[in-house]
Amino acid sequence: MEGYRLFLALLVSALLLGFLSVLFALIWVFRYGEGLGWDGSSAEFNWHPVLIITGFVFIQGIAIIVYRLPWTWKCSKLLMKLIHAGLNTIAMILAIVSLVAVFDFHNVKNIPNMYSLHSWIGLTAVIFYTLQLVLGFAVFLLPFAPVSLRASLLPIHIYSGLLIFATVIATALMGFTEKLIFALKNPAYSASPPEAIFVNTLGLLVLIFGALILWMATRPHWKRPPEQNTKVQQPNGGTAEGTEEESTVTDCSNADKSDVEFNSEAAARKRNLKFEEVGQRSTM
Amino acid sequence: MEGYRLFLALLVSALLLGFLSVLFALIWVFRYGEGLGWDGSSAEFNWHPVLIITGFVFIQGIAIIVYRLPWTWKCSKLLMKLIHAGLNTIAMILAIVSLVAVFDFHNVKNIPNMYSLHSWIGLTAVIFYTLQLVLGFAVFLLPFAPVSLRASLLPIHIYSGLLIFATVIATALMGFTEKLIFALKNPAYSASPPEAIFVNTLGLLVLIFGALILWMATRPHWKRPPEQNTKVQQPNGGTAEGTEEESTVTDCSNADKSDVEFNSEAAARKRNLKFEEVGQRSTM
Repeated sequence: MEGYRLFLALLVSALLLGFLSVLFALIWVFRYGEGLGWDGSSAEFNWHPVLIITGFVFIQGIAIIVYRLPWTWKCSKLLMKLIHAGLNTIAMILAIVSLVAVFDFHNVKNIPNMYSLHSWIGLTAVIFYTLQLVLGFAVFLLPFAPVSLRASLLPIHIYSGLLIFATVIATALMGFTEKLIFALKNPAYSASPPEAIFVNTLGLLVLIFGALILWMATRPHWKRPPEQNTKVQQPNGGTAEGTEEESTVTDCSNADKSDVEFNSEAAARKRNLKFEEVGQRSTM
Repeated sequence: MEGYRLFLALLVSALLLGFLSVLFALIWVFRYGEGLGWDGSSAEFNWHPVLIITGFVFIQGIAIIVYRLPWTWKCSKLLMKLIHAGLNTIAMILAIVSLVAVFDFHNVKNIPNMYSLHSWIGLTAVIFYTLQLVLGFAVFLLPFAPVSLRASLLPIHIYSGLLIFATVIATALMGFTEKLIFALKNPAYSASPPEAIFVNTLGLLVLIFGALILWMATRPHWKRPPEQNTKVQQPNGGTAEGTEEESTVTDCSNADKSDVEFNSEAAARKRNLKFEEVGQRSTM
């Protein structure tokens, strides 16, 4: 892998920033707030930033770059897709639970729902994220979609994934702003009390985490290399970005064994059959 | 150009959204606010959203996709760089004037500066935008940087440009949120008065404008094609994203004339000399 050390340094930095963001969210709600609970109080609201930062920022970020980790390149594409889809599913569930916490809190406190720009864009992001996940499952994980459809949808899938991720980060920054203005009264946000500085810093951590993920996800030389049997299976693979590759290897330990076969067209056909079997069995 | 009609439809949509955003900003400050002025009052603050949306969102967005307009492909790369740099310079000046308006307003009203996450990220974006412009001018417009430096910096220039643009949009969304919470008191933001709905809609317009610009700017098949004499001038052009091409054609009307020459290596050398002349004369 070209620039392996730089990739590793960026990955470690992103992981550190991600962990630090989750830690900051927890410190925010426990040190400056009422902790966590599920009783309609502020403690229930507090699940919102904690789950959004854990799931919708950190886990989504990792899900985006999971194909780029070079030590997974010997694992099958199908296994990596399952991990990608699995992480995104966890992120979606955490995001939905975090929305329930806010609606619940608002309803108990008689605060209107869905009035702010933060809520408009945030709910739109959750809906598009869910659609992206369902469509991604149907097209890229289930074995029914023709290769041409996969190839033409992949650039859209990648773009909309990155756009949703960036939008989620923007929405989180709006959320920090809202919450600090509402929560800080004496002293106010404008007096820069410790909580204001702390949460502003959390905002910067989340922004830099997002920037690192977007850099790693868009470097062409850090892309997972196409698998060797792809050319036989999918002659109309299209452009680099539009190429959609499959493999029959279902776990990392089988990868080396499978490498022996790839030059034979008969083996490729056999693999195609195997892949269909695996596809039928695959669950998310 | 592949998908020319789609490109045109997206371009027209982006222009409409951009104009509509500027119009919405003007309606916001004139219908719901105190209009525009330069007297330390809210009318001076109002220059902030108007100039940010006009310059830092709309003009910056157009500057990003200016190389993608297919009818400019017969113009020289140098001319397009001057337009790109010129538009970004206008955007930078408008952004700086809009910051002066806010600082001035804050100072007159005894409101602290630089306490909010919006201000932290916004000022950082303006600083990085200025650095990007100065570095871009020194490396890509002045004729001194070696081709290898240009090739290695171009992917960073593109990435940081798009990242700053996305960050500016995120900062604008935070700004709308802040301003609506502070300005709307009776009825409050949470009661969804017409101004709240109007500015939330402006936020959506700005977000969709940004999404369209980012889509157009990242489609590989809508990239300006490399110029024919590039291979002679720059054998070590690198990857598609890292390639940096030049042309000696200084205006669009000369393009056809120059096409006659490009197969001759002698002509290419002559062009190289001409380019150096043009480079020496180039100003921003």
